[in-house]
Amino acid sequence: MKSGIEELKAKARAAKAASRKMAYLSAGVKNEALHNISTDLLARKDEVLAANQLDYKEAEASGMNAAMLDRLMLSPDRLEAIAGDVLAVAALPDPVGEVFDMRTLPNGLQVGRKRVPLGVIGAIYESRPNVTVDISSLCLKSGNAIILRGGKEAVRSNSALAGVVQGAAARAGVPEGAVQFIESTDRTLVNDMLRMREFIDLVIPRGGAGLIRLVTENAAMPVVSGGIGVCHTYVDRSADIDKAVAIAFNAKVQRPTVCNALDTLLVHADIARSCLPLVAAEWAKAGVEIHCDERAMAILKSDSSLKLVAATDEDWGREFLSLVAAVKVVDSLDGALEHIERYGSGHSEAIVTDEYGAAMRFLNEVDAACVYANASTRFTDGGQFGLGAEVGISTQKFHARGPLGVKELTTYKWIIFGSGQVRP
Amino acid sequence: MKSGIEELKAKARAAKAASRKMAYLSAGVKNEALHNISTDLLARKDEVLAANQLDYKEAEASGMNAAMLDRLMLSPDRLEAIAGDVLAVAALPDPVGEVFDMRTLPNGLQVGRKRVPLGVIGAIYESRPNVTVDISSLCLKSGNAIILRGGKEAVRSNSALAGVVQGAAARAGVPEGAVQFIESTDRTLVNDMLRMREFIDLVIPRGGAGLIRLVTENAAMPVVSGGIGVCHTYVDRSADIDKAVAIAFNAKVQRPTVCNALDTLLVHADIARSCLPLVAAEWAKAGVEIHCDERAMAILKSDSSLKLVAATDEDWGREFLSLVAAVKVVDSLDGALEHIERYGSGHSEAIVTDEYGAAMRFLNEVDAACVYANASTRFTDGGQFGLGAEVGISTQKFHARGPLGVKELTTYKWIIFGSGQVRP
Repeated sequence: MKSGIEELKAKARAAKAASRKMAYLSAGVKNEALHNISTDLLARKDEVLAANQLDYKEAEASGMNAAMLDRLMLSPDRLEAIAGDVLAVAALPDPVGEVFDMRTLPNGLQVGRKRVPLGVIGAIYESRPNVTVDISSLCLKSGNAIILRGGKEAVRSNSALAGVVQGAAARAGVPEGAVQFIESTDRTLVNDMLRMREFIDLVIPRGGAGLIRLVTENAAMPVVSGGIGVCHTYVDRSADIDKAVAIAFNAKVQRPTVCNALDTLLVHADIARSCLPLVAAEWAKAGVEIHCDERAMAILKSDSSLKLVAATDEDWGREFLSLVAAVKVVDSLDGALEHIERYGSGHSEAIVTDEYGAAMRFLNEVDAACVYANASTRFTDGGQFGLGAEVGISTQKFHARGPLGVKELTTYKWIIFGSGQVRP
Repeated sequence: MKSGIEELKAKARAAKAASRKMAYLSAGVKNEALHNISTDLLARKDEVLAANQLDYKEAEASGMNAAMLDRLMLSPDRLEAIAGDVLAVAALPDPVGEVFDMRTLPNGLQVGRKRVPLGVIGAIYESRPNVTVDISSLCLKSGNAIILRGGKEAVRSNSALAGVVQGAAARAGVPEGAVQFIESTDRTLVNDMLRMREFIDLVIPRGGAGLIRLVTENAAMPVVSGGIGVCHTYVDRSADIDKAVAIAFNAKVQRPTVCNALDTLLVHADIARSCLPLVAAEWAKAGVEIHCDERAMAILKSDSSLKLVAATDEDWGREFLSLVAAVKVVDSLDGALEHIERYGSGHSEAIVTDEYGAAMRFLNEVDAACVYANASTRFTDGGQFGLGAEVGISTQKFHARGPLGVKELTTYKWIIFGSGQVRP
């Protein structure tokens, strides 16, 4: 048996070789592969669930917490949902092959750009085994080969799911080697993988902040990272108070554990007395703990039904991922813009205002992946934005920003049709 | 006086602050700044040329070779050409502010993407002082702040030119701090700069292979690299021989020192006897030295007017940057595709053929920034492709590929116009 790194290299080389053929695979073959995956997930569910049971029992015995165990667990219902998601990816338009910016130059050359896959995507992820299928289907749709490296805790589940994907893809005629799964859970292999610039065109980390930092700091190839969102909602002096209350409630409470949930509410001093008690009362119904700056505390402290905490410096720029919100009163739109510039993570930022100029300034001046006027930041999502499935949400600026769909897993090449032209 | 790294950090911080305002600077201000630069370059030419004279004399005394000295030298004519290039950039359409993919979702949200600058561009370059002005004008046009770090050998010239740019930009109302010049030539500062991920959004290295490697391997932020081109032209069995000769001659001889020049000619065995002697005879007139594989040597060796050398393994995949070409006879289109896949650098690749299917296969299957049918690879150039000025040529796949214009110095943000929507 080969050592870990040799096996990894062989798989990476095979993925690279397959990627050349994947680039011009027909939409028909790709979609057939996706339909096969969906069918096989259900047909082979006993095998997948049995593997998952082994992972689950081992994780439980090792003392994994309930939230993590829940992420790890597969069930017939969950498998059905995953199979449905694969069909949704199949239904998306094929992003590959689009020709754009095509024009005929004065010398008769026809020059344009053609959308092509990136090549080989490396996925490094933790816990949730559904990522194995999600990322594989998005990569297949976009014509990319894939190298999957999941977490140790889910290795049997991931291996079973990768087996389903590989079998289903091969049956449809996807080139051999297009889907690679790294069985070894040796941690040093992640670092080896991050150095394989010649084989891997893009790495996508999916997991906690630690994993994302490890990958971002060590990858020799491009990384699409994100998933960390310190999101502000700013209630301007002219805001419609009902809308402000509804948006602040939705952004904080509808799903507090995700990256597009509200972390800090900024309120203009002119409207704080009328608006803040109403927001806080709604939040209180859902059990939100409020970390108040001095002025917000002065306004709210008389209401004994609220869970109030004096904010510390660490509360600004903190991603709570729970039913906790920080609140600060600001004196102006400029004060809000400065706070967001300083503490925002470039994910999703919102203003609630009825003043046209304030909305336009906010949309222009805030530098974030998604900037909202009068809506909840919870909409930052590939599905909500109409991209179909999403690979993740990018908070970087290069290549793609915000929700990443299959198109964002592609690049382009210049194609030039000549008739013997030479450069004068 | 501050130490080097502190000064660098202060400049980077100032550039970042300026970049926030640059993002929504009007096209009018940006173009006025560019016109001012063009005017001031001529008005202040004595000062610039005097600085350049000092650099030149020092370089000459230190034994710099003639080609490098020529790159370093400025003259009234060259300054005029540089000033003209700046006006050409001013005449380009403003890439910033374009809104695309805008649509109204069923819930009434209007969601779209708006083109915005990347932020702060770091330019690390060698020798040619014109890069100071070129990159500055492209960054200004695209709304980016810029940190310039030129080579030691041109530091006085670069400083004088950066002074012209800064003065001209300020007079037009460009935010203070938008153009930063690093005066210190301490080499360790380059490494410090490459770690300033929080201030610099993209680094562009311009110079030799050593500089590009240093930057690519050490930068913590994205890099647009390229400039290394191992370019093949494949003459298919069905090629029009006149076109093949003209294209091979142009690609090798018209400007042999640049990255889009031909390095290796691949010829189908069926046409090699008729075509290769004609190509070689044309090349001989320009003094091209030909590194032949065995089969090419057998065809050409009887012509004593040719400069022939037996090719070694090192000749395949080598960028000659001079009047040297490698030639190999292949048995099929597949043989050519395999050779290009193995040895190409992903820059520019061409096929000469009259067979439709061969042209289409080549355009589809070759994975390079620019893929040609029946034209010279020398066309790979932002100006030739109609992008106006170019920042460089990317051989990477992420973000942008091939010639990079001002649009490729931008990214987008999602803008969302709501009327109180919350996520169900």
